[in-house]
Amino acid sequence: MFISFEGIDGSGKSTQARRLAEHLRALGREVVLTREPGGSPGAEEIRALVLRGDPDRWSAETEILLFTAARRDHLERTILPALAAGKVVICDRFADSTRMYQGLSRGDLRGIVDQLHALMIGREPDLTILIDMDPALGLARAKGRGGVEERFEDFGAGLQEQMRAGFLALAGEFPDRFRVIDGGRAVDEVAQDVAELAARERL
Amino acid sequence: MFISFEGIDGSGKSTQARRLAEHLRALGREVVLTREPGGSPGAEEIRALVLRGDPDRWSAETEILLFTAARRDHLERTILPALAAGKVVICDRFADSTRMYQGLSRGDLRGIVDQLHALMIGREPDLTILIDMDPALGLARAKGRGGVEERFEDFGAGLQEQMRAGFLALAGEFPDRFRVIDGGRAVDEVAQDVAELAARERL
Repeated sequence: MFISFEGIDGSGKSTQARRLAEHLRALGREVVLTREPGGSPGAEEIRALVLRGDPDRWSAETEILLFTAARRDHLERTILPALAAGKVVICDRFADSTRMYQGLSRGDLRGIVDQLHALMIGREPDLTILIDMDPALGLARAKGRGGVEERFEDFGAGLQEQMRAGFLALAGEFPDRFRVIDGGRAVDEVAQDVAELAARERL
Repeated sequence: MFISFEGIDGSGKSTQARRLAEHLRALGREVVLTREPGGSPGAEEIRALVLRGDPDRWSAETEILLFTAARRDHLERTILPALAAGKVVICDRFADSTRMYQGLSRGDLRGIVDQLHALMIGREPDLTILIDMDPALGLARAKGRGGVEERFEDFGAGLQEQMRAGFLALAGEFPDRFRVIDGGRAVDEVAQDVAELAARERL
């Protein structure tokens, strides 16, 4: 079972991914908790290459190619071997983040992301949990915790609104695998919902 | 005018690329002499990421994605701006090297290279000069000069035969832009042929 978590910054998706991993381990499941961009030694090196330096050092197209290379490595070296060994893979962000961020930055990029994905990745999560939240609350949380990735997380509230809408649109586009959870509540309450969702999906 | 040089290791293609650049500059043309993999600051960083470390650290698919990312950067930052400024661009290796090397290593990779090229590069040289040579001679030359790229150039004579055949097959596949020059002669003689070819192509 391959599960991804998606959501705007500060939505608590990383916390919820970790909480679900702990919950499933407590139930005796073997779980690999991973994240993107990165998630394998090679992919982490590519992540560093993309994220360091001037934001304009790579064009959007080159950046998509680098992220796709990182994702291919992550898939081959971390995700597929774990799934083949019968483990649950929980991934903090996957291809939907690329679809949403790139599609938001320039309309024609969504098609490029999808074509590259079809050609070089060809795998979607079995289940994608979208932690949905009011961006004002998410932004306050993200700022509060510090250490955010500047290039991806230092956006204003207006852009965060567009990102929230972008993720909800993806949930509508892929209803078979997306489940939307209200993240604007206490962490324990959200974690309880996620655990019940996982139980319903027979994890 | 965008000209690429292709050929097996030790064929003298890099020398001939430089000689043609000197020749055209002597005729008053502005020339940008570049190379792949690499050719722009970002592409050189990607090149270093691909070539350093264990040869098996990247799968063929990830490697193709990284080379395509490097080529996209090289095209955007070096080749297209030079062409737009009316300069001649001479490139030591371009997409044909990727087609030949990857296609030789695994038959199904050629299709992936071509699809990625169509989606993310979409540009071929106007003229590709293949410096063709007996691999035994090429290998002796490559070993003699030292400092070769191990991952790409440390092959035996049998594999070099296949590479020569692979380049000749590409010349047959793209007859409009490929010209084959016999590289098994003195450097000055080959350079003279290349210069005459360039004159015929109205450079």
